[in-house]
Amino acid sequence: MSLLVALPDREMLDRLGAPPEGVELTVWALGSEPVDRTFDLLVLPYMIAPTALAGLAGQAVSVVQSQMLGFDGVAANLPPGPLYCNAVGVHEAATAELALALILAGQRGLPDFVRAADSGEWAHRRYPGLTMQRVLVLGAGGVGGEVARRLVPFDVDLVRVARTARVDELGSVHGWEELDELLPTAHVVVLAVPLSDATRGLVDDAFLGRMRPDALLVNVARGAVVDTDALTRAVESRRVRAAVDVTDPEPLPPQHPLWRLPGALISPHVGGDIGSMNLRIDRLVGEQIELLRTGQPPKNVVVGGRQQ
Amino acid sequence: MSLLVALPDREMLDRLGAPPEGVELTVWALGSEPVDRTFDLLVLPYMIAPTALAGLAGQAVSVVQSQMLGFDGVAANLPPGPLYCNAVGVHEAATAELALALILAGQRGLPDFVRAADSGEWAHRRYPGLTMQRVLVLGAGGVGGEVARRLVPFDVDLVRVARTARVDELGSVHGWEELDELLPTAHVVVLAVPLSDATRGLVDDAFLGRMRPDALLVNVARGAVVDTDALTRAVESRRVRAAVDVTDPEPLPPQHPLWRLPGALISPHVGGDIGSMNLRIDRLVGEQIELLRTGQPPKNVVVGGRQQ
Repeated sequence: MSLLVALPDREMLDRLGAPPEGVELTVWALGSEPVDRTFDLLVLPYMIAPTALAGLAGQAVSVVQSQMLGFDGVAANLPPGPLYCNAVGVHEAATAELALALILAGQRGLPDFVRAADSGEWAHRRYPGLTMQRVLVLGAGGVGGEVARRLVPFDVDLVRVARTARVDELGSVHGWEELDELLPTAHVVVLAVPLSDATRGLVDDAFLGRMRPDALLVNVARGAVVDTDALTRAVESRRVRAAVDVTDPEPLPPQHPLWRLPGALISPHVGGDIGSMNLRIDRLVGEQIELLRTGQPPKNVVVGGRQQ
Repeated sequence: MSLLVALPDREMLDRLGAPPEGVELTVWALGSEPVDRTFDLLVLPYMIAPTALAGLAGQAVSVVQSQMLGFDGVAANLPPGPLYCNAVGVHEAATAELALALILAGQRGLPDFVRAADSGEWAHRRYPGLTMQRVLVLGAGGVGGEVARRLVPFDVDLVRVARTARVDELGSVHGWEELDELLPTAHVVVLAVPLSDATRGLVDDAFLGRMRPDALLVNVARGAVVDTDALTRAVESRRVRAAVDVTDPEPLPPQHPLWRLPGALISPHVGGDIGSMNLRIDRLVGEQIELLRTGQPPKNVVVGGRQQ
């Protein structure tokens, strides 16, 4: 049996090295001229908009492997035919790590210190800190769970909320219906939910208005979970602070007022993008190759096939 | 029995509220005119240089309670007589939290993002991250242990070094004699040692020269553990990066070149200084009052008495 695997760039081809017996690796960039063979597995480039999936039109593909975790917009844009697998296990640790970086930077005043350094100012003042604060984590999936796990040793009052109440290895998770009541009690609110019809625009004027004064909103989910105009108003009026890795739109335009508000910290969607990411994506691609090579179904299918 | 307790400011007096039966609270600022009574307990102001202890001269005091954890220089400057207690339990969590903030900010590029925000730049690039990196924590005392505990869920390769090899609830700690061999293997090196003759100037040209290229040095110990000139040279030549809460001298002078190096992040000695600190120092003062009131020895005696 022979397996044809298309990789998005020469770099991944070089990293993967010699394939197993019966597997052929090739490079095919999304949107290239279709080739007259079927790709048993096609790996997409890392960060692409769902509309870029139109670049698959005319190309025969059995399984599409994304390098992203979120798959909002994929079902509407994927040409019919292939199964679509997301990158479970690749980005959760890195994204949760960035969530902690944003929480800690916000609660300890690091952006102020960076700005003060440019004028050589020893800008000592007291910040709220994280210890003994109440942290509400919205979402108990892969990223939300990893955020919660990292928060535990910080001696915080951890409150988790997800679509449905549940108990997992980190304790109990409140159901969505309790959010309104819990929101005003939190010093830090972390968004770690998938973007869906239920979460789009979730953080609007009403949500921000219910947050505790001077609380910190952290977004490592998707930009569109937050109404950017409402957030800008709330940070501008110093009602709340924000530390976000994702924005709507993305990139945030250079003239957007959120960039220059002292209560806002913005990282440029780097949640999963760290040095060790390649190791994890290469391992996942290797696993998928091994599954297909041995006649098994691929893992992490989220669109297409029976799941659709 | 009557107990006379001197507090450093009106603010703490107000926070402590009504004292227990038989306890008198008063305010006496360090360096004030001595009063003709003996303070059974005197609480020092939060951040003071050891030389400021000269301000106790002529004042009868039985027990001095510091609001700081470090007590380098106290034995040489404390007038004879009183026991001196440090603030064990007050700052470890907050300082460890700041260490994590500095580690994560450094490994995820947050200072670059803050600077890019001022020009509205979506400065996406790949940073090393923390997951799967080797982190060497120097010091296994209160702060070092709390740093280690917070690092565990980040899926790092945690290596701990202290004066003597030992095993504690977080695993094994290497002895000092292994430092030379371990240093070149670490992506992040965290200093959490007390300042002593053994650690003063520990991080010199040789230490920095043994560090892995582009590794991050984090200092939440004391400024004088590091040779500031050597560190400045190493960061300027991009040999290593630095994220430090303490400097030598302190404050770092406005014109010092370390302030403006892109590889340096400096916070103004705010390790323990967060909103919840007052709760913890007030609780410690309350515990000391209760011990003395009931005829017991104070806790956390580090200078004076039998320990000297």
